[in-house]
Amino acid sequence: MKALVYQGPGQKAWADKDKPEIQKPTDVIVKITKTTICGTDLHILKGDVPTVDAGRTLGHEGVGVVEAVGAAVENFKPGDAVLISCVTSCGKCANCKRQLYAHCSDGGWILGHLIDGTQAEYVRIPHGDNSLYPIPDGADEEALVMLSDIMPTGLEIGVQYGNVKPGDTIAIIGAGPVGMSVLLTAQFYSPGRIVMIDMDPARLELAKQFGATDTIQVGADDPVAKILEMTGGLGVDVAIEAVGVPATFDICQKIVSAGGNIANVGVHGAPVQLHIEELWIKNINISMGLVSTNTTPMLLKTLNAGKVNPGKLVTHRFKLDEILEAYEVFGNAAREKAMKVILNA
Amino acid sequence: MKALVYQGPGQKAWADKDKPEIQKPTDVIVKITKTTICGTDLHILKGDVPTVDAGRTLGHEGVGVVEAVGAAVENFKPGDAVLISCVTSCGKCANCKRQLYAHCSDGGWILGHLIDGTQAEYVRIPHGDNSLYPIPDGADEEALVMLSDIMPTGLEIGVQYGNVKPGDTIAIIGAGPVGMSVLLTAQFYSPGRIVMIDMDPARLELAKQFGATDTIQVGADDPVAKILEMTGGLGVDVAIEAVGVPATFDICQKIVSAGGNIANVGVHGAPVQLHIEELWIKNINISMGLVSTNTTPMLLKTLNAGKVNPGKLVTHRFKLDEILEAYEVFGNAAREKAMKVILNA
Repeated sequence: MKALVYQGPGQKAWADKDKPEIQKPTDVIVKITKTTICGTDLHILKGDVPTVDAGRTLGHEGVGVVEAVGAAVENFKPGDAVLISCVTSCGKCANCKRQLYAHCSDGGWILGHLIDGTQAEYVRIPHGDNSLYPIPDGADEEALVMLSDIMPTGLEIGVQYGNVKPGDTIAIIGAGPVGMSVLLTAQFYSPGRIVMIDMDPARLELAKQFGATDTIQVGADDPVAKILEMTGGLGVDVAIEAVGVPATFDICQKIVSAGGNIANVGVHGAPVQLHIEELWIKNINISMGLVSTNTTPMLLKTLNAGKVNPGKLVTHRFKLDEILEAYEVFGNAAREKAMKVILNA
Repeated sequence: MKALVYQGPGQKAWADKDKPEIQKPTDVIVKITKTTICGTDLHILKGDVPTVDAGRTLGHEGVGVVEAVGAAVENFKPGDAVLISCVTSCGKCANCKRQLYAHCSDGGWILGHLIDGTQAEYVRIPHGDNSLYPIPDGADEEALVMLSDIMPTGLEIGVQYGNVKPGDTIAIIGAGPVGMSVLLTAQFYSPGRIVMIDMDPARLELAKQFGATDTIQVGADDPVAKILEMTGGLGVDVAIEAVGVPATFDICQKIVSAGGNIANVGVHGAPVQLHIEELWIKNINISMGLVSTNTTPMLLKTLNAGKVNPGKLVTHRFKLDEILEAYEVFGNAAREKAMKVILNA
């Protein structure tokens, strides 16, 4: 079969690989129907994730059809259409039993990281009963691909950890795919005002279409001064960091109100300076984490009920064997006005 | 009357001051019976709190007897014995209505800070109906003085913000009066293991008497290595910082488990380096804040029910007019084996 293979920092290829086989009784082999590319894949390609070995198939998002199941698999059979979760969970370790699947002792984020991923014709999913979800009849498969990672990440790490409440004023820093997922899922909890902050006017325009009540363009405006002006000097109830660099974390520290929350969603590569000498007295809370995908069942229900349409995050479509071209577009997202790309097998 | 007056960095005096008078209908004048000294008073004397003007009477803890009440005061009358809260609350602003009294728009921590405090023969308490509590019959008044500040600080900012749960393994870094208050109040929630970490073996011995299951002496042992060894490499459920310097905050970052909490109780004077490049993936939570004293009613009930005895934190007693000597002892707490000092009027 063909797969997108990481070949060391800066190098990738659409290459031949052996078709995966059942290794353990709990494995499921899935024939990929649709997959996508994540910002994390770009980080891996830069060499920022040293735990990824050369030769690894990338990708941790997608939908497909069950090709084969191990002897212990009970929830799925060949021919079933499935959503693949970016997080693998055994369902029976201490962390799985508290729904902290991100830290499953035999799983977590391993797809396209420690084992071969979804940017391929076939993928092996360990602990299939817990790591796959049946696709509802008539579901929009492009929308479902957004439920592999970015939508639960936005909901769990941004909205729920940040404790977004009805009427709150919230700010989201970073209008990329994950920031947009925060924007879409925050609306489940009826915040009063949602301020999107980014450098790119095109992304800010899209954010308005997706429900942002206000936007601030970094570069044209000072986001800290603007937020304080908008909130009568109080700051926001929840500041959500969806970029992953010290400058944006710093904005959050400056715009959070007393009693408020900073929810860090961004993946960081360097420490940040925490101004605890100013914040200790403000009764604030700082959260962070890897998605557990424990909200996937909730997201499936909202999708079925028409409460959210994550399919609108898809801006570009390619055939799976055009994946190198898709990487080129996604890697130049601002120039290409790209949000999420879909690869169709 | 006499009062302990801050005269600028490094200078204080037991000096004559005018007896306070009712200024607003909600004021209560209290004749001090017992007061104490807080680590914050030492910070002020060093010049670390520039919002304190020279001429200010220090102190924000104490019990006393009502001397006079303003026309709007309904809960108290002259002769009533009262506990003074370190935090003044109007009870009617937006933050008071969410029990965030620390950020009351006409209060918060103002006693011995922005207005004259409790280290005096008399003190004026604004918003007396909300900022004083009646003393139960037969109550231990030394124990009650611990309820002005350190006990609610330990309970709210350490234990409740840290989300200490039954069976948890928790570590408290800093066995000073506030760390000891965390230790005493954490036991309300039945953690399985309480590890106290400090440099002073005498304080660690006291911590064992107060309920610590384990102690680690910094200097003799490496607290990070020891905690990881004790927890099978996982770290603690809750790491509570009760010192206020970068080194102890850093220990917390290294010993918190995936899915765990860092509760910062210490008052910091400098930023800290937050290792978000390692912690972002660990699903941890960092909390901090000034006490709101919203748990004072709960603490009064536990005191009455004999569930806690904060009076045992008192190691030294002085007459109120010996306060300069008391400062000398409290300012050299390790040498004097002092925890809390009581000043009797």
